[in-house]
Amino acid sequence: MEIKTYKSSFDYSYTLGAFPTIELLRHQKDKVIKVLIHSTFTNQNVLDEIYNLIPNNLIEYNDKLINKLSDKENVYIVGIFKKYTSKLNPTEDHILMDNPSNMGNVGTIMRSSLGFEIKNFGITKPGVDYFNPKVIRASMGAIFSLNIETFDSIDDYSNKYNKHTQYKFMLKAKKSLRECSFDKDLVTLVFGNEATGIADKYLDDNALIIRHSNNIDSLNVTNAVSIALYEYHEKRSK
Amino acid sequence: MEIKTYKSSFDYSYTLGAFPTIELLRHQKDKVIKVLIHSTFTNQNVLDEIYNLIPNNLIEYNDKLINKLSDKENVYIVGIFKKYTSKLNPTEDHILMDNPSNMGNVGTIMRSSLGFEIKNFGITKPGVDYFNPKVIRASMGAIFSLNIETFDSIDDYSNKYNKHTQYKFMLKAKKSLRECSFDKDLVTLVFGNEATGIADKYLDDNALIIRHSNNIDSLNVTNAVSIALYEYHEKRSK
Repeated sequence: MEIKTYKSSFDYSYTLGAFPTIELLRHQKDKVIKVLIHSTFTNQNVLDEIYNLIPNNLIEYNDKLINKLSDKENVYIVGIFKKYTSKLNPTEDHILMDNPSNMGNVGTIMRSSLGFEIKNFGITKPGVDYFNPKVIRASMGAIFSLNIETFDSIDDYSNKYNKHTQYKFMLKAKKSLRECSFDKDLVTLVFGNEATGIADKYLDDNALIIRHSNNIDSLNVTNAVSIALYEYHEKRSK
Repeated sequence: MEIKTYKSSFDYSYTLGAFPTIELLRHQKDKVIKVLIHSTFTNQNVLDEIYNLIPNNLIEYNDKLINKLSDKENVYIVGIFKKYTSKLNPTEDHILMDNPSNMGNVGTIMRSSLGFEIKNFGITKPGVDYFNPKVIRASMGAIFSLNIETFDSIDDYSNKYNKHTQYKFMLKAKKSLRECSFDKDLVTLVFGNEATGIADKYLDDNALIIRHSNNIDSLNVTNAVSIALYEYHEKRSK
């Protein structure tokens, strides 16, 4: 099989760099097509872990292909894997991103989500192509520990997971994040698109706002999500 | 005076885009050298505000110069200003970034800092050139509402502002952010470099850690700072 520079239509994608590649091998080993190692790479710990995790016949030294896929960046390890689908776990808490458009943001939020123990990550369409190597890289491989499911809309999600209490983060919300106890059985944190937020029609009594001064219009979306996840985690892990 | 593409040695810098330019005019009007407007720009509210805020003779329609400075991005308003220095206010709380290296991170953190009402922003050297247009843009103009002062080191800062209680964010800290009451008269939040963190020798009883699962190594630095600022703001604004 010939490996080409990523397009969203491909049925495979790849990790760029040792860190996300190791996460791929640890958590989605059976999806691995091939691991590429650059001939100048000498970190023995990383090499040992790669050789321990997957069969030798999946490991290839191929400087030319690494250079092609990594587009001038300093990358010495690449993991090529078959894309896969997953479903959210209906008995655990969720995060839902409504049509997120920035790949770096989505990856960074995946990392925070895993850090604050929400392992189920919903995305409404069109949203980003979450297996784009840029998302994977920004997630530092956290993506391989998450269940990810896409939905046509927030309503589509609500129909499929109707036992979860949704907390939508909206600038028009009356209740502040700090006041919320997150004491429901099942919780979903919902965040809007970077530019447009969540549509007004979804405003309800559970909607939350992160209190800040009016010196700024709004917080950066990845920061807002991380603050919400932090508060959620402090209250749920008690 | 001939305006060139930014270099850190220049005694001027510039804002790219309407939003940060308006912030410049609102908060640092006397530093403005010139505002450039693109001939295709037609947002009347923005034009009115610009003409209200600064004298007409500082306003120039110059598509060619805008294109040169903005490097292919869609920019229609540019504000050129004389760089200035400021000092931290000794009677207010501070944030101190130890040698931050990423311009986008510093700008984003400036925006969060202003949002959570810390208006005094210290940076230890070498650190980034905080007047680089990339920092200004990531800050969305928040930079013009902050006092910014640079220091040779954390020790240099501590000598100059010895009445502040420093809370250093370190992965080796014993105390969690959530336990900290921030009940001192004057508070400084201190964050390390993205790659290296704060040196171990600074570890003390006030050092703080943001609790998260061990599924991830660490949080992204701008997210960590925003979480700390949020918790600080919730406790200090009571």
